[in-house]
Amino acid sequence: MGEPNSSQDRAGILIHALPYIQRYRGKTIVVKYGGNAMISPELKAAVIQDVVLMACVGIRTVLVHGGGPEIDQLLKKTGKESRFVQGLRYTDAETMELVQMVLAGKLNKDIVALVQQAGGQALGLCGIDGSFLEGVRYRSGGEDLGFVGEITRVNTDLLETVLNGGYIPVVSTVAIGTESDAGQSLNINADIAAAKIAAALKAEKLLLMTDVRGVLKDLNDPDSLLKVIYRKELDDLKKQGVVSKGMIPKIECCSLALDGGVSRTHIIDGRLPHALLIELFTDEGIGTMIV
Amino acid sequence: MGEPNSSQDRAGILIHALPYIQRYRGKTIVVKYGGNAMISPELKAAVIQDVVLMACVGIRTVLVHGGGPEIDQLLKKTGKESRFVQGLRYTDAETMELVQMVLAGKLNKDIVALVQQAGGQALGLCGIDGSFLEGVRYRSGGEDLGFVGEITRVNTDLLETVLNGGYIPVVSTVAIGTESDAGQSLNINADIAAAKIAAALKAEKLLLMTDVRGVLKDLNDPDSLLKVIYRKELDDLKKQGVVSKGMIPKIECCSLALDGGVSRTHIIDGRLPHALLIELFTDEGIGTMIV
Amino acid sequence: MGEPNSSQDRAGILIHALPYIQRYRGKTIVVKYGGNAMISPELKAAVIQDVVLMACVGIRTVLVHGGGPEIDQLLKKTGKESRFVQGLRYTDAETMELVQMVLAGKLNKDIVALVQQAGGQALGLCGIDGSFLEGVRYRSGGEDLGFVGEITRVNTDLLETVLNGGYIPVVSTVAIGTESDAGQSLNINADIAAAKIAAALKAEKLLLMTDVRGVLKDLNDPDSLLKVIYRKELDDLKKQGVVSKGMIPKIECCSLALDGGVSRTHIIDGRLPHALLIELFTDEGIGTMIV
Amino acid sequence: MGEPNSSQDRAGILIHALPYIQRYRGKTIVVKYGGNAMISPELKAAVIQDVVLMACVGIRTVLVHGGGPEIDQLLKKTGKESRFVQGLRYTDAETMELVQMVLAGKLNKDIVALVQQAGGQALGLCGIDGSFLEGVRYRSGGEDLGFVGEITRVNTDLLETVLNGGYIPVVSTVAIGTESDAGQSLNINADIAAAKIAAALKAEKLLLMTDVRGVLKDLNDPDSLLKVIYRKELDDLKKQGVVSKGMIPKIECCSLALDGGVSRTHIIDGRLPHALLIELFTDEGIGTMIV
Amino acid sequence: MGEPNSSQDRAGILIHALPYIQRYRGKTIVVKYGGNAMISPELKAAVIQDVVLMACVGIRTVLVHGGGPEIDQLLKKTGKESRFVQGLRYTDAETMELVQMVLAGKLNKDIVALVQQAGGQALGLCGIDGSFLEGVRYRSGGEDLGFVGEITRVNTDLLETVLNGGYIPVVSTVAIGTESDAGQSLNINADIAAAKIAAALKAEKLLLMTDVRGVLKDLNDPDSLLKVIYRKELDDLKKQGVVSKGMIPKIECCSLALDGGVSRTHIIDGRLPHALLIELFTDEGIGTMIV
Amino acid sequence: MGEPNSSQDRAGILIHALPYIQRYRGKTIVVKYGGNAMISPELKAAVIQDVVLMACVGIRTVLVHGGGPEIDQLLKKTGKESRFVQGLRYTDAETMELVQMVLAGKLNKDIVALVQQAGGQALGLCGIDGSFLEGVRYRSGGEDLGFVGEITRVNTDLLETVLNGGYIPVVSTVAIGTESDAGQSLNINADIAAAKIAAALKAEKLLLMTDVRGVLKDLNDPDSLLKVIYRKELDDLKKQGVVSKGMIPKIECCSLALDGGVSRTHIIDGRLPHALLIELFTDEGIGTMIV
Repeated sequence: MGEPNSSQDRAGILIHALPYIQRYRGKTIVVKYGGNAMISPELKAAVIQDVVLMACVGIRTVLVHGGGPEIDQLLKKTGKESRFVQGLRYTDAETMELVQMVLAGKLNKDIVALVQQAGGQALGLCGIDGSFLEGVRYRSGGEDLGFVGEITRVNTDLLETVLNGGYIPVVSTVAIGTESDAGQSLNINADIAAAKIAAALKAEKLLLMTDVRGVLKDLNDPDSLLKVIYRKELDDLKKQGVVSKGMIPKIECCSLALDGGVSRTHIIDGRLPHALLIELFTDEGIGTMIV
Repeated sequence: MGEPNSSQDRAGILIHALPYIQRYRGKTIVVKYGGNAMISPELKAAVIQDVVLMACVGIRTVLVHGGGPEIDQLLKKTGKESRFVQGLRYTDAETMELVQMVLAGKLNKDIVALVQQAGGQALGLCGIDGSFLEGVRYRSGGEDLGFVGEITRVNTDLLETVLNGGYIPVVSTVAIGTESDAGQSLNINADIAAAKIAAALKAEKLLLMTDVRGVLKDLNDPDSLLKVIYRKELDDLKKQGVVSKGMIPKIECCSLALDGGVSRTHIIDGRLPHALLIELFTDEGIGTMIV
Repeated sequence: MGEPNSSQDRAGILIHALPYIQRYRGKTIVVKYGGNAMISPELKAAVIQDVVLMACVGIRTVLVHGGGPEIDQLLKKTGKESRFVQGLRYTDAETMELVQMVLAGKLNKDIVALVQQAGGQALGLCGIDGSFLEGVRYRSGGEDLGFVGEITRVNTDLLETVLNGGYIPVVSTVAIGTESDAGQSLNINADIAAAKIAAALKAEKLLLMTDVRGVLKDLNDPDSLLKVIYRKELDDLKKQGVVSKGMIPKIECCSLALDGGVSRTHIIDGRLPHALLIELFTDEGIGTMIV
Repeated sequence: MGEPNSSQDRAGILIHALPYIQRYRGKTIVVKYGGNAMISPELKAAVIQDVVLMACVGIRTVLVHGGGPEIDQLLKKTGKESRFVQGLRYTDAETMELVQMVLAGKLNKDIVALVQQAGGQALGLCGIDGSFLEGVRYRSGGEDLGFVGEITRVNTDLLETVLNGGYIPVVSTVAIGTESDAGQSLNINADIAAAKIAAALKAEKLLLMTDVRGVLKDLNDPDSLLKVIYRKELDDLKKQGVVSKGMIPKIECCSLALDGGVSRTHIIDGRLPHALLIELFTDEGIGTMIV
Repeated sequence: MGEPNSSQDRAGILIHALPYIQRYRGKTIVVKYGGNAMISPELKAAVIQDVVLMACVGIRTVLVHGGGPEIDQLLKKTGKESRFVQGLRYTDAETMELVQMVLAGKLNKDIVALVQQAGGQALGLCGIDGSFLEGVRYRSGGEDLGFVGEITRVNTDLLETVLNGGYIPVVSTVAIGTESDAGQSLNINADIAAAKIAAALKAEKLLLMTDVRGVLKDLNDPDSLLKVIYRKELDDLKKQGVVSKGMIPKIECCSLALDGGVSRTHIIDGRLPHALLIELFTDEGIGTMIV
Repeated sequence: MGEPNSSQDRAGILIHALPYIQRYRGKTIVVKYGGNAMISPELKAAVIQDVVLMACVGIRTVLVHGGGPEIDQLLKKTGKESRFVQGLRYTDAETMELVQMVLAGKLNKDIVALVQQAGGQALGLCGIDGSFLEGVRYRSGGEDLGFVGEITRVNTDLLETVLNGGYIPVVSTVAIGTESDAGQSLNINADIAAAKIAAALKAEKLLLMTDVRGVLKDLNDPDSLLKVIYRKELDDLKKQGVVSKGMIPKIECCSLALDGGVSRTHIIDGRLPHALLIELFTDEGIGTMIV
């Protein structure tokens, strides 16, 4: 054996992955991709490789992505100024159009191109395609936020067609409005969209990529990571203030997915290269699992 | 019978369409959608209805769309200035990005939304998805035009998956570069893309929507329309100057499609509401057929 | 636009049919064909065209036909005299044989030939084929009517094979006897057969063609047509004498079908050309709907 | 063992049939059924049992039947008189109608009923159904014989649908006219129809049931049966007068089938009960094989 | 007709089998093969022919075989001496290895070869293949019997794959251990294995071949055979001493199968040639049926 | 990164395997398993893991195994003495029986059990099953070697059924005799059997496991390994004495496979743990590739 990473070592590492591959073959895993992992070219390349490997060993992988700094850049370039309602950005028609262009026209297709370059097969979608994400406008405390929406129905037919055809669906979280907003594009929070898609597909796992280590007992101590949280503990943890404010929406997404029939959810640190593979195919796992 | 459009009349008109429906059921028809038909809301609605009806009676319909004034609007908004090479707009990286956002992120999804509103099932694609349109940079007389490309391969697997799944593929003509431009988005002429897609699918028909009546013998005389042109006549017609300069690229697209195995090609007037249905399902036809 | 029935008008009429086609695609509709519509060559041609169009746009269409004047003609030709029991014709063995020959050997195959000439695909069946209509002798008030029967079982396997193979089943209503009449042909009322077949197939619709406008409040006033009758109203209407005596058996067929799971039933006027298309594909509808 | 037909003997006889069943499983065999075997109730029952057993052990069995004395009876009953042209009965429109009624409406459905009673699954067809036998008028030496036809095309799609659905197709040999006789029923010789159907299906075997022992060297000596004739010998045998005049059309049907790709053809004696089974499933065979 | 076993007689016997073939087509029948029928070459040949005929007429046939004198011969040859516990042979590791070699390596493949020689298609399996028979060690009154096991689970996936592929599964009753004996081969009683397999497959019939006539009222009187026993009578019969001691395990296997959903079970005399065919395809049946 | 085999390292190694997995997914690879790799428990476990991983990532894997010391042990135990003909062991009937028992009854099922324990799905076969390896006796220079055979036909239907069912076929190389040895088991050289099976399946690769490094230029210098040999060089290499005598039969197997349509063949060192994975999924490869 001798030196690290000899052929023998490498073979041994592949063999270590075997039981994990066996466990997830043919299962559906939804990945929410966002944050730093969408910005740094190295991290981006690593995520894409992970996703392609997952699909290649037979995992039905759905990649849901968020927006990035590009939206702000384009808003700035076009001289568009933002209005805020209760601390949330008001999405007027023009902004919505720009958001959709960046998400579905640029980020989505860039990810698809990277998957294809890495030898995978991907197809970029947004909720307008086949009306697979239907929604209505979201009102926070009765306040109108413009074309910010919430999902009322996930139609899985299109996703099944795409997955069965052997393609990784890459999803921009724009929904199509119904009722009084029929035909109108709506901007959807990507974490929630991923959770609802995972629930609709009865996925095995939802993996939320974040820019933190996971759920920490002490925000200042990275070693205080909670490796597993049981759903029944969540309320207590929130009350005890253990869960930081920024983490609460992530945890609520996980609850949503679990309630909808997803087996396990994970909050993982997208700043670590190959966080997905490490979570799925090694003994250690990574981040916080909520079950 | 009596008054026009009685129930009897309407039934008779449906029956008149029967032999045409029988002829095209299960066949593939590629429609290039562009020009005024993409701008006027009335024309747009009529095209969408036609396409949904085509799909509904069992025609495998592929809708390839061009850009529109939105590209110029966005370029203007972002303060981008255009450079021209030999009269053709040079497409630099930033412009290509904007073009892709407008085509794949806005126009494409807007068309998909309209098809869905009209009761059809559509899925928006660009050539990056599944790398189904591969290309290289196009050089006109050796001059670099930036990220303008030409198609080198149409991979029909993705289109077949989408058509077999019961969805109308709505196609933005952005290709994915290969070789030295691997992974780079390339802007493709929509007429040529439609012709190449029709050829790759061995389509029954290619329908090119234009803003003119068809091929006219005398440009000033709309009654001088040539209803049928045989491929072997094309060279003579060009030499005789019968075919106007603006029409030559359209006719070359038709030749390309015919050479590739498409049975019939049509140049039709997109300014007439329901031009597609009239061409396909009535005795008169419309525009110029090139066979 | 101007003159009636321009290309534009015709296209508009096709588009008007679109939502109806969308509604009925892939659904099963059983048509009982009889009366004048089977005698007048013009009406016959129109019915056949309607049925072929229905099948062509994806409706699973089953055509059940009655007998016609040909039975009487053949009885007369062969010198056969009829005996009546309680006002109903007694069907002896020889008569049954002649009835079967006319229904399954002549009328059925003539209809099939017309469908084929009109570009459709049809297959003529009677209840003996695959024993798909099983029956026993019908006794009216204990009186023997000979080989008049009632259906005890509809075996849908054969119809499914034929429909899935892409053929319109054209059905003569001869059943195969069971129990003490095992193997014996039985003559079945075509309206009731159509209703039982529609119920067995859980059809979307049963359309009964008659020689009257529909259910009239006042038999002498064709404008007194009842457009919709709800099942719960039926008893009252019969008591009130609103439903004419001739119409009662038709209405009972509709009840039978509705009880068996058919969604909607219609009594339509077969004397109007294209009554089927008008009922299915236009806004007005025709005749009386019983739901 | 002892007495004949003990259980042991019976088992032994089943086992003897095994290699024959293995040979014909999944193969197509076309049986022309006619003559005495269609008249005597005992013979009829035996033929039906044979056909049901054939289908039951996995042979794709097609049963083509001829007419019988019923046609003459009906012609007589209706007072129809026959005209002869060159010794052949002229088939006028009225006669054709009666022929079709007897064949497709009576004999065909009677056979279907018997198959069903015997536990098989059958579907009665004539060439009008799905236009599966297309023909033109036959002219003998330029003389018009009325609606006597010859087959120009066998469309096997319908037969494949019926066979794959698990039904025995029972075929009346009425064809649908094309060209100048479009839509007209035509009367076809059943032997020739069987041969053409066998050829179109690339059948393993064609079995022609006759009322003679087979091809005899000496018509007066039943022991002079020729067990095998090779196609190349046929011309010589005809010249030598060995083949009797009545047998020539049968032999020509066999040639037709062999030319069309059928592997083996047999002329068998339908007067022997279970002639089909004896030919197929025992060592002796029966009648004359032409290969 | 005259002499026994003329062609006519033979055809008649085949026809007699028809209703039985119709009854069992597509059904699953599990045969336990053992005793004299595995030793005498004539009986062996007859069983194989029966099984091949069963499969050939469409019965999904599973052949479960026991061991034979070969095991003792090999034990003797290798000088292995047997130890007995409570009258049962203790199966140590070395004995288990020899048992498995004889069963799965010799007897199993010999049977497969015979089926193939007889024109059938067979595939030899033991419970280790696809782990389709899982078991644990069997303890009789707490005593360790070595590697004698009992079945805890029958995984029917493998059997379905083999049956659907058109092969007769020939099964050696070696199971794969689970829990503390994970991966260890276990020797299983073949009668019980056959019963459990029949139950898991929801078989139509279980046929146990024995070396006796069936269940006799009086062991000394072969004419006292009980042709049918109803399950509810079993306890009484045992109490009354009617069922001989040697027959009790057979009857308990039948009970096990009936409890598991098998429709009928039969104890038949494997010393009679073609006992399987006589039981399945003739009127008499053979042995004792327990239902 | 720091220490060897951190999570990061392990993920990186999985990613390194990705292009190899992509290359071999859905392809067929035949592995000849023998020698030390079948004896040492550690090597055995490693081979099984490799094979299970191969199958798990979608490679259609066929495992052909040789015999081992068990055959000699059993021969010794049973007191059987060997006779040699021209230096080759004469295989008499009794020896053949013992060989078959060890191969098909013990080694084969032991391998199947190991695959199942490792989470794979395997089915043990020998050439008798479905007669998938047919052979005749092999005669070396006219001398009779008893029941040593050579393969005359590989019937791939059974292997396809097993592979499509999701099972790894584990193959003992016993063939079934044809012609004068019909039904007789024949002992086949496992290397040649693997080559013929690979050719019949048009496999992507044949991997022969040996107990040497590969083809060495200088037998005494392990660093003189030839990494690639082109088929056209083989004759020269043999003449030059480069290929050692022991290696010649291995190389001839590779030639046989290449001639039969296999893309690449490899002679690899089974003494290295995970030699299969290293060859398939790492950059270095291992042993000698012959193409």
